[in-house]
Amino acid sequence: MIAATPAPPYVAVIFTSQRTDDDVAGYAAMADEMERQAATQPGYLGIESARGDDGFGITVSYWRDAAAARAWKAVADHLGAQRLGRERWYRAYRVRVAEVAREYGFDRDSMV
Amino acid sequence: MIAATPAPPYVAVIFTSQRTDDDVAGYAAMADEMERQAATQPGYLGIESARGDDGFGITVSYWRDAAAARAWKAVADHLGAQRLGRERWYRAYRVRVAEVAREYGFDRDSMV
Repeated sequence: MIAATPAPPYVAVIFTSQRTDDDVAGYAAMADEMERQAATQPGYLGIESARGDDGFGITVSYWRDAAAARAWKAVADHLGAQRLGRERWYRAYRVRVAEVAREYGFDRDSMV
Repeated sequence: MIAATPAPPYVAVIFTSQRTDDDVAGYAAMADEMERQAATQPGYLGIESARGDDGFGITVSYWRDAAAARAWKAVADHLGAQRLGRERWYRAYRVRVAEVAREYGFDRDSMV
């Protein structure tokens, strides 16, 4: 579930949100659909998502460049998820668009 | 729980990880201590964290600039969390250092 992104630079869109308690099934269906749609977009590199029992969640999507991230925003807005989200699914959210400069990590299965 | 970050630019350190099932209490104590320590560092702007029941988690810490993020890495390494984490707490993790260029959002409590 850790995205297999290429060597930097590339763009990360960090979406942090606090869910309401409303419409659990509708929200889950929307979130799945958004992830499926994102994966079909030009310049898509991957997505990572986590939400705790307190309803606070973080989704990071990765894109080849700022243009690809902007194009995805236009599609996402068109799908209407953010508009509906404001009213039903989210108490608050924040979107931050950032350029990844470097990365490193660890994977137990890749250890010698 | 959404960090109250200032106007961009600033730096985001995106830490994504897959937990093992081991040492739940020890991990929680380490995570709390790391968040407390981060908040005392120069250039700290905020932190956001979420982990689902599947053990996949994302923590994003925000810093005034790349130098502050690097200094925090040195402190965190010294605290030993990553070294121990490799062996006990994480199946895999990835750290991405990124510069936030723009942000926007929504807060129900701030609506007129």
